[in-house]
Amino acid sequence: MADKVLIYSRFPKTMMARFAERFELLDTVGKPAREVFPAEDLGGIRAILTGGAQPLGAEAMDQFPRLGAIICYGTGYDGVDLKAAAARNIAVGHSPGANAASVADIAMTLMLATTRRILVADQYVRSGDWAASKQSPMMRPQAGMPGRRIGVYGMGEIGRKIAARCAAFESEIGYFSRSKYDLPYKYFPTLEALADWCSVLMIAVRAGADTQHVVNADILRRLGADGYVVNISRGSVIDEKALVAALTDKTIAGAGLDVFEKEPHAPDALTALPNVVFAPHIGGHTLESHVAMQNCVLANLAAFFEGKPLPYAVKSA
Amino acid sequence: MADKVLIYSRFPKTMMARFAERFELLDTVGKPAREVFPAEDLGGIRAILTGGAQPLGAEAMDQFPRLGAIICYGTGYDGVDLKAAAARNIAVGHSPGANAASVADIAMTLMLATTRRILVADQYVRSGDWAASKQSPMMRPQAGMPGRRIGVYGMGEIGRKIAARCAAFESEIGYFSRSKYDLPYKYFPTLEALADWCSVLMIAVRAGADTQHVVNADILRRLGADGYVVNISRGSVIDEKALVAALTDKTIAGAGLDVFEKEPHAPDALTALPNVVFAPHIGGHTLESHVAMQNCVLANLAAFFEGKPLPYAVKSA
Repeated sequence: MADKVLIYSRFPKTMMARFAERFELLDTVGKPAREVFPAEDLGGIRAILTGGAQPLGAEAMDQFPRLGAIICYGTGYDGVDLKAAAARNIAVGHSPGANAASVADIAMTLMLATTRRILVADQYVRSGDWAASKQSPMMRPQAGMPGRRIGVYGMGEIGRKIAARCAAFESEIGYFSRSKYDLPYKYFPTLEALADWCSVLMIAVRAGADTQHVVNADILRRLGADGYVVNISRGSVIDEKALVAALTDKTIAGAGLDVFEKEPHAPDALTALPNVVFAPHIGGHTLESHVAMQNCVLANLAAFFEGKPLPYAVKSA
Repeated sequence: MADKVLIYSRFPKTMMARFAERFELLDTVGKPAREVFPAEDLGGIRAILTGGAQPLGAEAMDQFPRLGAIICYGTGYDGVDLKAAAARNIAVGHSPGANAASVADIAMTLMLATTRRILVADQYVRSGDWAASKQSPMMRPQAGMPGRRIGVYGMGEIGRKIAARCAAFESEIGYFSRSKYDLPYKYFPTLEALADWCSVLMIAVRAGADTQHVVNADILRRLGADGYVVNISRGSVIDEKALVAALTDKTIAGAGLDVFEKEPHAPDALTALPNVVFAPHIGGHTLESHVAMQNCVLANLAAFFEGKPLPYAVKSA
């Protein structure tokens, strides 16, 4: 009998095909498990596959009395109540670093698209306004990358890849993180100091309760009128209302956002703004990143069902 | 009496402000000089400031019997008939390298925006289709940068900066140029071989009569169905009709274009395509790039009027 895995979040079916070759999948398609499957099925569930940002607390865990493993697809696990899992002897796994390059690349894409105003540029050509020599105030020359001060918030695998890429663009790199590392970038002891210094704030911090809304109105004001914020971490790190206000009243120049507070919803007040470039949480969304993340999931699940420790366990779990 | 400079191309007035402090400008705003200024004014003209792509041949030069210097704004000078200039003892100057980083950065911006489908992504969020969980075939996962084969056509200052940036994205770099250099990238002896090998062709060659339409239907076919072409050089290097055909019938996956055959016009058949990201020739269009290019122009004009050789002369002129 094949090992059973409950699919707790909504994932594209094509993405699940590789797992279905090895495991029997009970796919909730993101709906409450109790609504989709009878209690006797849930009682037998020992492993869950989830999206790391989806809330998964004590009460949810207690639906599955035999649960032994929560495997997150991707690097994040901020939705999982790690204390509750530990109290129930549930191992938590993820895919550390598997999508780091892909996420760093979407950060670079959003930064360049935003600072070089590529949406406006594309529309200027497509509309015929360029051919008609119409004025376009949004197309005035902007500061470029050489010498630009890029502030990286969080120096994990993704932050390091962002920093390495920005260095190749001849930018200056600064960072704030809990620890200072032996890296050729300027360290700032606070997020406030980093925001005062930089003109682009790249949010690459691992999200959690301690990072909730830390990028607030004060940090945005410190970025200043020529400042940009790029978020590829989690929507929860930014106070989204403060961001809408700062973008609307030109407290900052623009933003590039791959993540939002309540996905898949981006507030209308935000999506109406011309000085933002949006992406629908596609940071880890490349072919090789998906393969690498799937490899981590398969290795975690195989180890669990063989009674071994997870090879890609969440360290603090 | 201030030295007079005829402004031969259409430039934004704000861009000319710095030159006007030092020189008396006769601005044609891109119109034929004879229509704008009386013959006696043209007769006294000794220096011209032009956009490098704008045609400036023997006949045009002969409008100005005392002409001694043609100064191009930017690095390109493909519009200037160098033989005709040499035959008339007219020095030709440009701004070598002054915009190289800015142009390389727009190449990176267009490559990332095209391969990661950022226009589609932005529209998917703004339209509410993401929130409504609507299918979006264009948003399927694509190949990312690590391990991607980037082919750079032309290894001048811009090509080198593109290659250095791509290397930071963990891509493989190959190049074709007239000469093989001592660089850590794979050299290909022909453009055909480079196109067979790479999945993104970055056109950074110095344009001229010898590069007219060299990126043709055959080269595009060699790039293949997962291939992209990015052009930040000159529109003349690509056979634009062949490009429209290749993009329409999916011979290649997409394109990022900052330059066009007949600027500021981009063909309707091209601008209707969803798998292209357009920019209105803004490669060199950053604040620091403009300052650097203006510095070259000012140095060239000052030297000329002092009877000295141009510090930034076109080498083959």
